[in-house]
Amino acid sequence: MSSVETLVDRARAGDPRAVARLITLVESGDSALPQIAALLGPTSVKARVIGVTGAPGVGKSTTTNELVRTFRKLDRRVGVLAVDPSSPFTGGAILGDRVRMQDHATDPGVYIRSMSSRGHLGGLAAATPAAVRVLAGAGCDIVLVETVGVGQAEVEIASLADTTLVLLAPGMGDAIQAVKAGILEVADVFVVNKSDRDGADATYRDIQGMIALGERAAGQWRPQVVKASAARAEGIEGIVEAVDKHHEWLARTGELVRRREHRAASEIEALVLAELRARFAELPGVGLQELAAQVAAGELDPYAAADRLLDEVSS
Amino acid sequence: MSSVETLVDRARAGDPRAVARLITLVESGDSALPQIAALLGPTSVKARVIGVTGAPGVGKSTTTNELVRTFRKLDRRVGVLAVDPSSPFTGGAILGDRVRMQDHATDPGVYIRSMSSRGHLGGLAAATPAAVRVLAGAGCDIVLVETVGVGQAEVEIASLADTTLVLLAPGMGDAIQAVKAGILEVADVFVVNKSDRDGADATYRDIQGMIALGERAAGQWRPQVVKASAARAEGIEGIVEAVDKHHEWLARTGELVRRREHRAASEIEALVLAELRARFAELPGVGLQELAAQVAAGELDPYAAADRLLDEVSS
Repeated sequence: MSSVETLVDRARAGDPRAVARLITLVESGDSALPQIAALLGPTSVKARVIGVTGAPGVGKSTTTNELVRTFRKLDRRVGVLAVDPSSPFTGGAILGDRVRMQDHATDPGVYIRSMSSRGHLGGLAAATPAAVRVLAGAGCDIVLVETVGVGQAEVEIASLADTTLVLLAPGMGDAIQAVKAGILEVADVFVVNKSDRDGADATYRDIQGMIALGERAAGQWRPQVVKASAARAEGIEGIVEAVDKHHEWLARTGELVRRREHRAASEIEALVLAELRARFAELPGVGLQELAAQVAAGELDPYAAADRLLDEVSS
Repeated sequence: MSSVETLVDRARAGDPRAVARLITLVESGDSALPQIAALLGPTSVKARVIGVTGAPGVGKSTTTNELVRTFRKLDRRVGVLAVDPSSPFTGGAILGDRVRMQDHATDPGVYIRSMSSRGHLGGLAAATPAAVRVLAGAGCDIVLVETVGVGQAEVEIASLADTTLVLLAPGMGDAIQAVKAGILEVADVFVVNKSDRDGADATYRDIQGMIALGERAAGQWRPQVVKASAARAEGIEGIVEAVDKHHEWLARTGELVRRREHRAASEIEALVLAELRARFAELPGVGLQELAAQVAAGELDPYAAADRLLDEVSS
């Protein structure tokens, strides 16, 4: 039995160290990834994936922490992936909100893990679903994917979730920012966190107003808005209720299957493109670097260069 | 002579309507793109590309406007591309700062154009350099690329520029945000705009402090920090000076060629990947959608699916 087989078997049996080790392999883009995916098999598609996102300071980690507690009371096994989209330039990032979830450190029904995209060929778009599969294979019913900040990367990761929670806080002017960042379109449930603070009602009304203005076809999901104060453990049941309601809607309408097929298509495509990109570097003929030098010097136009590269890849 | 040939000839002669029409073709991902690139030829790599980015409200459009005025005084022909990264979901975006540059409407040495990524196969990563080539072919010495907001998309577009200006304004706490968004790594020149306001000195010191903390190899460019007040037309010469100084450094060290080769490589790669992605949709065998359905159902793992797709693409 290979060491990877042993690891997968141990992860299946719920060994947290084996789970951690597998996610490390996934994160580093290890060559054993295809084998891990094959060994994890069909069980790995059954977990519900819930995205938790929002601007820095809205209380994502605190809310995630309380969600874990509530799901555990309902006896569901929970995995948490805290995703750091990283700088594309240094591979590093300054994090203000690394997971503070020591509460669950001794609970065998909870796996918590920070992730970065460092070194992974397909980036987080490929690493995150692979890590979700590991957690699902280890028996998690629910995987919470917490993303830092709000931006393009977060929108992409949100699209990997069955249900996406967008957190807001009073007085951050983030309703407008949310619309600008395309967040309105990805949110299934809005949480107005810190709702004990001044301005919570205004934020609640703002976001309700924006939802009312948004165009939706008949039968489409209308985003729910929930007030909470995660730091006081208030309103968490309301969030879980909204999430469950959304999940029922997904299942009833067939949208769950559609979302998961869309997610699978994105993942396959990311893997194929990453593989092709790796092949560019090893082409026997005129490589990408040489073509790029000719384009930069004005000796070749980029479309002609792309044609030549395509010929080499396909031959 | 084809209509595209006529358009390129007219654009070369400086006809603004021909320039506008060509950029529209570029934006829509028209099938004439390779022909346009071939007709524009080597001249199109000579323009200097300057990126202007920063959070909403820092005064990007006003600053760009003043930069155009100053470059015109120096008798340089200037193109402006105002890039709207668009929501990936609706293709739309709420813009607070559409270009307000009527000042230059009657100046034949200035082309101003808003761009969106709608419909373009390779997205803005492919459309922006193509539009830069059109402007360069029309005789622009300098192309200013203004991007809305600060985020992943902006970082990517910044990487297309020879020199990137990052605008900050006092009291927006954006120094920290800039670091989080990876902006510190892409900035060649920081502009503390609205420097007549309270807190400008603090912002100036913050960013200087962060630059001092940043690691740089010997001989690497140390980002310049310039104070300005674009609304009062103050400090603009200082920005141009810093930009020129950076350009001299780029040319002297060979970094200009390296950046442009890197940019060309990214563009070629984006074109190849876009073409391959389009081919996935037309594969004669088991297509991406069917493989995705099998993965979503747990009948196939995504790596095995990617392998099958790769076999079909390469065969």
